[in-house]
Amino acid sequence: MSDRQFTFIGGHQGAWAITGVKPIVGVALPLASHLDIVTGHTAAAPESAWALRGVTSSERYVTRAEKESLAAVQEPLGRPGSTRGALIPIRKSPAWWALAQDERRAILEERSRHITIGLAYLPPVARKLYHARDLGEPFDFLTWFEFAPEYAGAFDDLLAKLRATEEWQYVEREVEVRMERSR
Amino acid sequence: MSDRQFTFIGGHQGAWAITGVKPIVGVALPLASHLDIVTGHTAAAPESAWALRGVTSSERYVTRAEKESLAAVQEPLGRPGSTRGALIPIRKSPAWWALAQDERRAILEERSRHITIGLAYLPPVARKLYHARDLGEPFDFLTWFEFAPEYAGAFDDLLAKLRATEEWQYVEREVEVRMERSR
Repeated sequence: MSDRQFTFIGGHQGAWAITGVKPIVGVALPLASHLDIVTGHTAAAPESAWALRGVTSSERYVTRAEKESLAAVQEPLGRPGSTRGALIPIRKSPAWWALAQDERRAILEERSRHITIGLAYLPPVARKLYHARDLGEPFDFLTWFEFAPEYAGAFDDLLAKLRATEEWQYVEREVEVRMERSR
Repeated sequence: MSDRQFTFIGGHQGAWAITGVKPIVGVALPLASHLDIVTGHTAAAPESAWALRGVTSSERYVTRAEKESLAAVQEPLGRPGSTRGALIPIRKSPAWWALAQDERRAILEERSRHITIGLAYLPPVARKLYHARDLGEPFDFLTWFEFAPEYAGAFDDLLAKLRATEEWQYVEREVEVRMERSR
């Protein structure tokens, strides 16, 4: 099981140097110079600023056709040229979680094109979704992005498109943590 | 958050006296005389036989129409006449979890009628689903059932119908713990 559990630790060490922390909706995260991504669920060490736990899981909305479209073009994390990273923790509102499955799917894809928008930026912007809500975490999701410096503008476009959607009206907290690979 | 977290503890105390533990698929749970249901996620005390953690969460498959059909007829847990209970922990196979959302929905409801079958036994057989897979638990789901003694036969019918479905071909561990209210 521990191969699906990860902890993102903001502190003084890690492979990623934090270059900016921007509160998009609600309050930001405490300042930290580096991000360390560790396997398993660990508590924050006293010298860390924050620790966010997440778990990779089954897809909640993606259809078989979409899953195959994504798989056909996506590339793995850890590409040597992907020296830019972003961690975007998000919490959605109680109104979102009170919706039924078909209502959430209709908002997420049929009306907001969340999956389609993400697909348009593959393979340059690689991403991985971690679920956190059922772990009792302060955020519902942690999304991790990796890309080469020349795609930083494209990444900003991707974020702008998603934030303009109907789905994002249900986002009640969002923080954008940007970073550069430090080793 | 703790209002969604529960731990089912098999041991020497609790409001429910265990009357039977039956392994349906795979190995059973260790013997225990009573079940205690506590809020929050706690480790098993040394004198307990087992502790299973779960969390109530958003519905993964139910549509708005189904949600309203269920809400129109279901009754709450804790009815005075509901002196019979059952806890059924289930783990599904990796093949199930590798399916896309639309494939899982098609098997669960369009082909196996899981939601429809459960609806047919409401309000007599009340039930509540707890998610456990993303918590790193040995089971993916814990389903809790409550009913009056005169509906014990109906409850057995419900279980037989579900276990005959295509969905149940993906169940790789299932234990049936039956009990009576002891206080």
